[in-house]
Amino acid sequence: MDDYRRGGFTLPGEAGYEKLTLELAEKWGADVIRDSDGTRLSPEIVAAGYRIYSTICIIREHNAFAQAHPDAQQQCFLLSEAVLAEGDGIRIPLLKGYFDEQFEVNDSPESIAYWQVWDRTANKPVPRAQWTYADGAVTVRGCEKWHRYTVSFLCWRVWEEINMYNHTTNHWTSEHLRQLDPRHPLAWEYLRQWLRDWCEANPQTDVVRLTSLFYNFVWIFGDDMRRRSRFVDWASYDFTVSPAALRAFEAEYGYALTAEDFINGGRLQATHRPPTPAKRDWMDFIQRFVAEKAKALVDIIHGYGKQAYVFYDDSWVGMEPSGKYFPSIGLDGLIKCVFSGFECRLCAAAQVPVHELRFHPYLFPVGLGGLPTFSEGGHPERDALAYWLHVRRALARQSVDRIGLGGYLHLTQGYPAFADAVERMAVEFRRIRALHAHGAPAVLNIRVAVLHTWGSLRPWTLSGHFHETDGNILIHINEALSGLPVQVKFVSFEDVLAGALRDADVLINAGLMGDAWSGGDAWKDPALAAEVTRFVHEGGSFIGAGEPSAAEGGDTLLRLSHILGVDVDKGQYACHAPWAFETEKAPFAVCGAALAARPGVRVTEPDTRVLLAGGGAPRLTLRAFGRGRGVYMSGFEYSPAAARMLMELLLFLTGSDARPAGFSDHAMVEAAWFPADSTLLVMNSAEEPVEATIACPKGDVRVRLAPLETLFRKV
Amino acid sequence: MDDYRRGGFTLPGEAGYEKLTLELAEKWGADVIRDSDGTRLSPEIVAAGYRIYSTICIIREHNAFAQAHPDAQQQCFLLSEAVLAEGDGIRIPLLKGYFDEQFEVNDSPESIAYWQVWDRTANKPVPRAQWTYADGAVTVRGCEKWHRYTVSFLCWRVWEEINMYNHTTNHWTSEHLRQLDPRHPLAWEYLRQWLRDWCEANPQTDVVRLTSLFYNFVWIFGDDMRRRSRFVDWASYDFTVSPAALRAFEAEYGYALTAEDFINGGRLQATHRPPTPAKRDWMDFIQRFVAEKAKALVDIIHGYGKQAYVFYDDSWVGMEPSGKYFPSIGLDGLIKCVFSGFECRLCAAAQVPVHELRFHPYLFPVGLGGLPTFSEGGHPERDALAYWLHVRRALARQSVDRIGLGGYLHLTQGYPAFADAVERMAVEFRRIRALHAHGAPAVLNIRVAVLHTWGSLRPWTLSGHFHETDGNILIHINEALSGLPVQVKFVSFEDVLAGALRDADVLINAGLMGDAWSGGDAWKDPALAAEVTRFVHEGGSFIGAGEPSAAEGGDTLLRLSHILGVDVDKGQYACHAPWAFETEKAPFAVCGAALAARPGVRVTEPDTRVLLAGGGAPRLTLRAFGRGRGVYMSGFEYSPAAARMLMELLLFLTGSDARPAGFSDHAMVEAAWFPADSTLLVMNSAEEPVEATIACPKGDVRVRLAPLETLFRKV
Repeated sequence: MDDYRRGGFTLPGEAGYEKLTLELAEKWGADVIRDSDGTRLSPEIVAAGYRIYSTICIIREHNAFAQAHPDAQQQCFLLSEAVLAEGDGIRIPLLKGYFDEQFEVNDSPESIAYWQVWDRTANKPVPRAQWTYADGAVTVRGCEKWHRYTVSFLCWRVWEEINMYNHTTNHWTSEHLRQLDPRHPLAWEYLRQWLRDWCEANPQTDVVRLTSLFYNFVWIFGDDMRRRSRFVDWASYDFTVSPAALRAFEAEYGYALTAEDFINGGRLQATHRPPTPAKRDWMDFIQRFVAEKAKALVDIIHGYGKQAYVFYDDSWVGMEPSGKYFPSIGLDGLIKCVFSGFECRLCAAAQVPVHELRFHPYLFPVGLGGLPTFSEGGHPERDALAYWLHVRRALARQSVDRIGLGGYLHLTQGYPAFADAVERMAVEFRRIRALHAHGAPAVLNIRVAVLHTWGSLRPWTLSGHFHETDGNILIHINEALSGLPVQVKFVSFEDVLAGALRDADVLINAGLMGDAWSGGDAWKDPALAAEVTRFVHEGGSFIGAGEPSAAEGGDTLLRLSHILGVDVDKGQYACHAPWAFETEKAPFAVCGAALAARPGVRVTEPDTRVLLAGGGAPRLTLRAFGRGRGVYMSGFEYSPAAARMLMELLLFLTGSDARPAGFSDHAMVEAAWFPADSTLLVMNSAEEPVEATIACPKGDVRVRLAPLETLFRKV
Repeated sequence: MDDYRRGGFTLPGEAGYEKLTLELAEKWGADVIRDSDGTRLSPEIVAAGYRIYSTICIIREHNAFAQAHPDAQQQCFLLSEAVLAEGDGIRIPLLKGYFDEQFEVNDSPESIAYWQVWDRTANKPVPRAQWTYADGAVTVRGCEKWHRYTVSFLCWRVWEEINMYNHTTNHWTSEHLRQLDPRHPLAWEYLRQWLRDWCEANPQTDVVRLTSLFYNFVWIFGDDMRRRSRFVDWASYDFTVSPAALRAFEAEYGYALTAEDFINGGRLQATHRPPTPAKRDWMDFIQRFVAEKAKALVDIIHGYGKQAYVFYDDSWVGMEPSGKYFPSIGLDGLIKCVFSGFECRLCAAAQVPVHELRFHPYLFPVGLGGLPTFSEGGHPERDALAYWLHVRRALARQSVDRIGLGGYLHLTQGYPAFADAVERMAVEFRRIRALHAHGAPAVLNIRVAVLHTWGSLRPWTLSGHFHETDGNILIHINEALSGLPVQVKFVSFEDVLAGALRDADVLINAGLMGDAWSGGDAWKDPALAAEVTRFVHEGGSFIGAGEPSAAEGGDTLLRLSHILGVDVDKGQYACHAPWAFETEKAPFAVCGAALAARPGVRVTEPDTRVLLAGGGAPRLTLRAFGRGRGVYMSGFEYSPAAARMLMELLLFLTGSDARPAGFSDHAMVEAAWFPADSTLLVMNSAEEPVEATIACPKGDVRVRLAPLETLFRKV
């Protein structure tokens, strides 16, 4: 008999709140107690019989070393403001507009050797002989009048960004923490010794919980509160650069990167945009470096008989959990913070022994969006349940091993509804985990391939959390897919050319022209359109959302327009009439709210069936193409009803019967069938009681569900 | 004393309605009677003492000749549908999807020599050896599997398009009229002789009214009523092509054009898109040909003591009235049909002795949009007054010599309100004309330059009438400018580089990225951005609307973003935050309804002043730049209030006082000051009585105006 009351739960303990810690450990069934950024565990807690996680941010908390070795700090390229040449000469102050507590110019000769001055009007670099540096500014001579000039320069990052965020957001007043670059030989030597010392000093620790590794996601602050957060990219590699790294790269790859390879006209190389070949090389270079260095640290930890888990957030750059180098690190566990279903799938997919989710809300006065959680006006139990609804349906598809919380435990006092909600979620998690342990849930024989630039390097995620990327259609589709009983893989354009569609039934491409999710210039390779054309013509289905397969230079903007029977007009159709259409009833349930009207979408084939339209433009279309079909969606916004539409669409396209996996007749109710336990897991997403009939291999099952209920029904 | 009851009015007479003709000629004060397409004048009308215009469409009504010489008919390139290669070979039917009563394949060897088969997937032409033609289809061998192939081919246009329109729209049943290409030597010989014979046979005609010249605007019909009108471009040159023309071009220019120069991936080269250099050459080549041939015809007409007027519509291609070759034709008058103010200005700007406007509605059962005019449910007097409101304010700025009507006069029976409305408009026109005759109206010293691809070749117009181009911001701006007391010129990018901004105060660029009005790739020339930067920095103003100066490849999308302090995000700003802003009150009246919210617009400079915002994006901004200013407008939709906003903006930007030209304190009231007559012309656009104070050089004048009234007030 499974024990659903205890196990698989990591509790954040807090010194000074020993009684609360142990009480909640009991209530929530914790088997592990951890510390958090800003908290400590007291001997009383450590000795209470729980396994102990200890949090380490390896590159931070070494201010003395950093001050003694300032050249061991991390760096990045920045772009100055553009200065207009009103005459022959101009002076460009480098850090103007940036937060001067975050950056200091690295004006060493080895740094300046990589700087570039660009004539942005003419879009070309200025010869080195024309500029000089002094006192934080570059002076340029021989300017073209009325042209605009910028300087790309290297600077030190003198405030670790998560610490900077906590100071500026939560009014911390402690010393600003610096961060070390493990590429610096002395720093690397120091960090290894520091870790050995730490392990020696902390015999009680079972698991070293690495709060990520070395390089933070990129977060560039401005000096003006009207644009404090200038740039945020959770998957950018811009904080990995240094003259030493650039030299090592050149030595290995045989070509040198320039500042512009990073600066890219001031846009940097955001994860949402297709990378240059040089950026791909750089990423691989950094991934190997991060894996190698991380393995060395893990080896030290293992040498002390401890386990090493890594928290996937903040300084995770270079350790993509589905990347090819991740397994080589030898980590024992991956901990992923989750707001959403797609994050559960991302965690579960990693090749690592233990998968753990850290739930939200974090035990902090305010949430990431700045709204109150554990403070006046907050409703942490509501937040927790809202996230749980997303997480639950993904766990129904693929479970993880553990869950937990983080932050200041004492903040939960006064929020008993939150404590009860966590207790309930922990029990439900354990019941779902037990079902999986007895045998995998039934999955339909529908093989979905999601196609984008990053492919299997970045399955499920785009760049960061849902709320940071929710302007992108694909994250909504990924979230919907995370809870559907279908097989999902993420493929790159190279994968498709290498035959990845041979074991796919439905291909999805969702994004806007030029972004990494639609694919941008990748579609200029005719072999790509030809291969997808073959796939669909021979019976596959293609779902395109937004501006799928869009690229300039062809006879259509969407390179798969001939499959979809729609195209997007960005002016190029001037004077050309589209096909007039009438809307017909769809052969599946349509969630109109998920499909925002997109201006410029037009019908380009007479046999395109329009299933929904708005603003004169089609929003959902269906078309036969050879033995397959093309489906166009103007957008996709996640909701239970939207996920339902996607499920019904997949069933329709593949001619599948949903019964083998359990299928509800109610839009707000999803189900999973666990054959080993002959059990239906039924989940109500409605905030009201509902009744539903679930079709499963054993016949129809009628259920009544309380609001948001998770029902386990033996059949 | 001027006679406002008679003169400057051209009446369409109609045989069988002699009494009506003469009655209305009297009522409307006609001095000229004309025939129309489909009507005749009887001897009784011709002898009534009026000057006579006779309408000729020179290339039409020669079916016997065309049948005897089918190779003298006009041609064009068409693109077949794309056919997918499922194997090595495909068959592409050429005319599938086109209206087979309009087109016939020209499969002569000299035609086929210009055909091209394209692999549209790979975006390259297929070698000639791989395809053959037979029975209306091209067969291609050696195809790449899953690639799409098209054929670009020449065909005869066997139904003159205006005749085709009248048949298909108004259910005409007469013989389909064909059209001759004056480039064909026999046809040219025939047409000249035909014109001589016609002049001999019509001694009573004073003015030969050429219903345009040789080449119709491009109108391509499809065979399916769901896409009957496939392509319409009022300024396209696609109907001017033939093997003979292509050979002559190559002989003169030293390089050959290909089918793809016209087909352009199926998009043709619409006027709304920037032309290729080859298209620019082709246009000049055709313009010289049209002018030369037209001059020969005008010489014949003059030889018979008649005058030659040309109607600017339908087959006007190559005779742009502000083009450099137009004066060489030697025409005596230009007649422009008008719905809008900008069309008056276009007509008035032509270098020709007589400028005449043909008013709308045309005396036809239905209007161009298909709505009833002189038939059940029609209100022709309302239509006429609505157009008059637009025309009146432009006439106040620059008058023409004559007005008139066209069509079937008998249709006006039963619409006495229409007859009264025309009478009123004719009188008001004559009064306005008389004011101009005594001395030009005061114009402010505000010199506006409108910048687009076509510059002075196409002042005021885009491509056709307002309602055909009203999806473009610029036509709304042109319409507003047509009635403002400012100096307006239209400049091309080449003009700007040649110094055209030296005598401008305000530069306007309005369009969407990649279109001819914004400018597209022209902005990739850094000299252009530099010159506008100089202009504004030294004190000029730049108004950018929509996506002004947009081009890929720079550090900003809008190449003048550094002036405006806004840019447009098409994804390239991923992860970059814009400047937060607050909206402040504008120093002029803002017409929010004119400024549709545009997604992606963002503030890029801290000192950009946002005067109106919507959907989180700025809609109207103002920014100081050097000694000048930049103004961004998200759009511009014409209305009296929008025109008022533009006027107030121009006054603000230039620091001007409006009083010298007459300025009303009421948004619906415009005024013009005629110093020679010491007279204010005051126009009420409201459908209700209003009171307004007009500031003029003689002081403030208080006026009361009836609905829509035109008031002439001696001061």
